[in-house]
Amino acid sequence: MAGSTFGTLFKITTWGESHGAGLGVVIDGCPAGLPLCEEDIQRFLDRRKPGQSAYATQRKESDTAHIMSGVFEGRTTGTPISVLINNEDQHSGDYSDIALVYRPGHADYTYDAKYGFRDYRGGGRSSARETAARVAAGAVAVKLLEQLGITICAYSQCIGGNGIDYERFDIKERDRNPFAMPDAEAAAAVEADAIAAKSNLDSLGGIIECVISNMPAGIGEPVFDKLDANLAKAILSIGAVKGFEIGDGFMVAKLKGSENNDEFYMDNGKIKKRTNHSGGVLGGMSDGGDIVFRAAVKPTPSIASLQKTVTRDGDDTSIAVKGRHDPIIVPRAVVVVEAMAACTVADLLLQNLGARVENIRKIYER
Amino acid sequence: MAGSTFGTLFKITTWGESHGAGLGVVIDGCPAGLPLCEEDIQRFLDRRKPGQSAYATQRKESDTAHIMSGVFEGRTTGTPISVLINNEDQHSGDYSDIALVYRPGHADYTYDAKYGFRDYRGGGRSSARETAARVAAGAVAVKLLEQLGITICAYSQCIGGNGIDYERFDIKERDRNPFAMPDAEAAAAVEADAIAAKSNLDSLGGIIECVISNMPAGIGEPVFDKLDANLAKAILSIGAVKGFEIGDGFMVAKLKGSENNDEFYMDNGKIKKRTNHSGGVLGGMSDGGDIVFRAAVKPTPSIASLQKTVTRDGDDTSIAVKGRHDPIIVPRAVVVVEAMAACTVADLLLQNLGARVENIRKIYER
Amino acid sequence: MAGSTFGTLFKITTWGESHGAGLGVVIDGCPAGLPLCEEDIQRFLDRRKPGQSAYATQRKESDTAHIMSGVFEGRTTGTPISVLINNEDQHSGDYSDIALVYRPGHADYTYDAKYGFRDYRGGGRSSARETAARVAAGAVAVKLLEQLGITICAYSQCIGGNGIDYERFDIKERDRNPFAMPDAEAAAAVEADAIAAKSNLDSLGGIIECVISNMPAGIGEPVFDKLDANLAKAILSIGAVKGFEIGDGFMVAKLKGSENNDEFYMDNGKIKKRTNHSGGVLGGMSDGGDIVFRAAVKPTPSIASLQKTVTRDGDDTSIAVKGRHDPIIVPRAVVVVEAMAACTVADLLLQNLGARVENIRKIYER
Amino acid sequence: MAGSTFGTLFKITTWGESHGAGLGVVIDGCPAGLPLCEEDIQRFLDRRKPGQSAYATQRKESDTAHIMSGVFEGRTTGTPISVLINNEDQHSGDYSDIALVYRPGHADYTYDAKYGFRDYRGGGRSSARETAARVAAGAVAVKLLEQLGITICAYSQCIGGNGIDYERFDIKERDRNPFAMPDAEAAAAVEADAIAAKSNLDSLGGIIECVISNMPAGIGEPVFDKLDANLAKAILSIGAVKGFEIGDGFMVAKLKGSENNDEFYMDNGKIKKRTNHSGGVLGGMSDGGDIVFRAAVKPTPSIASLQKTVTRDGDDTSIAVKGRHDPIIVPRAVVVVEAMAACTVADLLLQNLGARVENIRKIYER
Repeated sequence: MAGSTFGTLFKITTWGESHGAGLGVVIDGCPAGLPLCEEDIQRFLDRRKPGQSAYATQRKESDTAHIMSGVFEGRTTGTPISVLINNEDQHSGDYSDIALVYRPGHADYTYDAKYGFRDYRGGGRSSARETAARVAAGAVAVKLLEQLGITICAYSQCIGGNGIDYERFDIKERDRNPFAMPDAEAAAAVEADAIAAKSNLDSLGGIIECVISNMPAGIGEPVFDKLDANLAKAILSIGAVKGFEIGDGFMVAKLKGSENNDEFYMDNGKIKKRTNHSGGVLGGMSDGGDIVFRAAVKPTPSIASLQKTVTRDGDDTSIAVKGRHDPIIVPRAVVVVEAMAACTVADLLLQNLGARVENIRKIYER
Repeated sequence: MAGSTFGTLFKITTWGESHGAGLGVVIDGCPAGLPLCEEDIQRFLDRRKPGQSAYATQRKESDTAHIMSGVFEGRTTGTPISVLINNEDQHSGDYSDIALVYRPGHADYTYDAKYGFRDYRGGGRSSARETAARVAAGAVAVKLLEQLGITICAYSQCIGGNGIDYERFDIKERDRNPFAMPDAEAAAAVEADAIAAKSNLDSLGGIIECVISNMPAGIGEPVFDKLDANLAKAILSIGAVKGFEIGDGFMVAKLKGSENNDEFYMDNGKIKKRTNHSGGVLGGMSDGGDIVFRAAVKPTPSIASLQKTVTRDGDDTSIAVKGRHDPIIVPRAVVVVEAMAACTVADLLLQNLGARVENIRKIYER
Repeated sequence: MAGSTFGTLFKITTWGESHGAGLGVVIDGCPAGLPLCEEDIQRFLDRRKPGQSAYATQRKESDTAHIMSGVFEGRTTGTPISVLINNEDQHSGDYSDIALVYRPGHADYTYDAKYGFRDYRGGGRSSARETAARVAAGAVAVKLLEQLGITICAYSQCIGGNGIDYERFDIKERDRNPFAMPDAEAAAAVEADAIAAKSNLDSLGGIIECVISNMPAGIGEPVFDKLDANLAKAILSIGAVKGFEIGDGFMVAKLKGSENNDEFYMDNGKIKKRTNHSGGVLGGMSDGGDIVFRAAVKPTPSIASLQKTVTRDGDDTSIAVKGRHDPIIVPRAVVVVEAMAACTVADLLLQNLGARVENIRKIYER
Repeated sequence: MAGSTFGTLFKITTWGESHGAGLGVVIDGCPAGLPLCEEDIQRFLDRRKPGQSAYATQRKESDTAHIMSGVFEGRTTGTPISVLINNEDQHSGDYSDIALVYRPGHADYTYDAKYGFRDYRGGGRSSARETAARVAAGAVAVKLLEQLGITICAYSQCIGGNGIDYERFDIKERDRNPFAMPDAEAAAAVEADAIAAKSNLDSLGGIIECVISNMPAGIGEPVFDKLDANLAKAILSIGAVKGFEIGDGFMVAKLKGSENNDEFYMDNGKIKKRTNHSGGVLGGMSDGGDIVFRAAVKPTPSIASLQKTVTRDGDDTSIAVKGRHDPIIVPRAVVVVEAMAACTVADLLLQNLGARVENIRKIYER
């Protein structure tokens, strides 16, 4: 019945419903002495904020982050950091029709099956709005990773079947188009499809790719808390994600060992790999290469075209979902993927501190 | 530094190295009163046992399960069930060369990066032999699920690019061919490729598909402990797995909302779905449909052809991996996938017991 | 570095500093369908509220509880319940002197030793104000326990050496005197001592006793999560508590087995015990008797008389602690003890739901 | 339903019943590179071993420790350490009478109340024999603490009302008398009482005191995972323990703040305390002083004199407990207290590694 807490040492607990008073996160276990201010968090929230393009929900939320605890004189104190985001633009009236009808592709039915009833307003806890709290937590994790020189970068790799061309890859372009694509041509193709989808009262899915750079080797815990296993959980826990793959991913089904293995070589006294089929993880631990993974994001289930469904009381009916929805959820999910990746890596970096007796001696030498 | 424990209420802790004294698992939190004997576990271990085909390692292990605790007069007592499997056929000599050389695609380097040194014999803790303990735990979870009518069935869906044809799907065929494929024709195609790969000193990867049937709706914990998120972690934690997808999976990138949504309808007073694009999960909770997911398994990294690599001491070198290896690891991983799925579902079924006050009252009424 | 989360299934996470923006708790895992409103929580907070007697801090806080999530139409939804309490009467100026000086008996030094610096205002996270969040969580747990007929009642058993006389025990009296003593004569004796202590710029310690009634038998998890072990942790985690004992407690050192054992007998078909030396726990599980435990609470370390100490920078100095402090912390801690006991029991009641296969079948029968 | 796992990073999982095949522990999260051999563990087990005095059970068990994994070439590898202890001298016949009758002071009834049935042989999982696995784990924790210069020492402080005189305190004496008392005179007084108790078919309780020396300051996690809170849980989780107190403990009820506070002073540039009323913990974190705590251990409930009780089937009856029991359990529990204290401290030392950003940078600097 719990399930709103993620992480062992860098531990985040989120709360809040789409149309309640607000939402937030408590980050427990962030090391003391990290420079942190509300602007650090706001920068991330602004990337997820609704209403910024014609292809995102028109709900108007400033998503203003309030740090309620855990920061003193500009630095984290080691105690829990509580971040509060008030809801401002709830139009609960829009959702009164879904109180009694289960939207296809949504969690309305499963929430009722589990709990017996639900806060139906705007999807309640199952709303994508829940991810704002994750992003706030991720912003703090990113600040921590920066201290170690680790960076995380995600982008739309494919939307509605339109994939980026890596020859044209330009990460600056990501922040210029409404699809978070690092390739202007691909974004243009998506735009055409998006316009068509909107006018057909339909929606599009896509793939987000994420790269974590400058990871030290050896991060991740055998056997069950492998870096890739924890990343997979983190990413699949994001609402609309239906798949996760790392490195060559599902392509391995067609590869031979000789093609998929990465050869090691020495480079100025450092161990390097010539290729990165592994996606930066061997045996569940970082291998010094970039961590490269992808997430499959389903098309927004809220569509305005008529779909057959049932009522809570067990009658056949049909519904055209009203309200303010994202016809493509992929672009706004990009920063959520970064956030969850950051929290996962921060947690495993902390777990790894005690991997060797010599490290422990180093910290406690008196 | 921990990481050998999986689950919150149905909690398994594995231990053991490839060439140590043995390996095992402690299952804590299995409900009391479940009929269980060693044969229940042995049946599962036998499906994973080495040396059963020309395409698997020739190491000879009986993999005999000893229940050391937690069972009395044929039933579980509610206390931890410790299962012990002794190692019998360690040829540690075969591995002396890898003490100093990092095998490409293996965890030799990352273990050293993390811990400073490692038990290199047979890959130590990173050996696929570790999965025997998971299978023993999974056998117990399967017994528990049986009590609720829930069944789990996995099979090779594709090996070396040869996928099954669902028109020919025959689950009984799975146990007849050495590739665990439910399609004799596909298995024959794989065999040809496998023979070629072996003679080329190479290996093949593939995809395992798994179906969980008769799940009650509402299982899985929002937000972070979603059923699919926990399954993803469970499956990615298996050694060679590089991807996980559920329902339409990565295909959603090309689908529209109208294509990916599953319509609900009433069937004799029960809520059903006309299609199962979701793979049986909505909002992270089971939706009453079959849970259908796939895992991408990389080609065995241990190949006998010469690969460039480095030594532990930082010199360039090359290696042809000796020892007794599976040219295709997919078939033996099928039961491991079932095992991890069973443990995941058992854990979430227990977590869900207290989802409603009315359930709690039902148990404690006096 | 974490440590602000308590419980496995009924899981509470608190945050907040004495002089920050506020404090709060996220309760994750509360079953759905529990009637809950802000007044339910306020009633408990009011028992802990400062400024209600001459023997408590004169800080003025309304301690108003705001439920931010997890409740819909008067019932819990199963999603996290976030309770927010804003700080209103911070006089941070009072504490500027302790920024540099370590108060004896306080956590100033240990926080610096751990984190390198601290939010010194009012003791920051180590302030007793932190317990308001626990009380809010406890109020929810008590509501859940009420559904099963379980009640929890704590009171001051002894303050400054003045113990209650069980012959005069009257629980209604507890709420009439400022010492939470269920015995008016004992309270009068305490008052005399309290006046003396105040005028001597000193403080008093005491013992709180707590009784949990109507527990079903069998609650508590062997081996490590015993009911009494988890209670001990819960109670010792309260700021000033220095001891915990259950049943005969430390008196067992002088007792024989024949004196300490409780004989069982049948009473109208039910198993009962003639005595309750065990304090309601056998082998770490409830035995059907009342759970009876005691907590030792140290005298408030903040005293206005001059004490020798050191500065943060390593110089000998002395301090007379200013600010608004409770000369006796015991009475206000009574409701905190109830709250922590309630959270502990609620968590173990949920953990116990799956103890038997037959219970699981009962919930999932279809 | 789980409950056999203790610790977050230094995580131990025990299993085994009194009369099953054996018992053991899996220690997950022990840092790599720690020198460890079976003799290190055996030394601790030998202190707990039965049959060593006339006042302990006459069961003959060699309690031989087998390290099954996690150690390679004399050092821990960072992977789980599995320790196996086979049972050798089960006389299950002795216990056939308790299959149907609930022994007063024992867990027979509560196990049945929880699980519906139990392994009654020798008390099954509730037998004090379970603590052998804790001691094995504690031996490993002690080895880790030694690396940091931290030592742990427990002894009987009082048995049957006969307390030690600190003027005569001699820790070497502890290992010379059968009562683990560091005072020969007190031990002699206990012996007289013990002889009397035995001949009266009765048993004695006592108090164990434990001192942890040379702790760095700042260990322990606010708010819930305080050092003393976690110690309290660890100690109360030991079978017969009914109370825990730290520093002045229950005596605080009679003390004033001016008496209970410890003054700080500078000693050669180091912060020291003049007294240690706190028992080495302030605000839940170590304050640099010795950690001093006490545990109350009840008299062995297994007594041969006749006691009234009930049968499993609900009839009044009486029982004189047969079998081989310790008339005083205190002396054999001394090493168990040390073991649990060591595991607790090891876990919190590891959790503290990431308390500051500067520590993390120190480990990961490249």
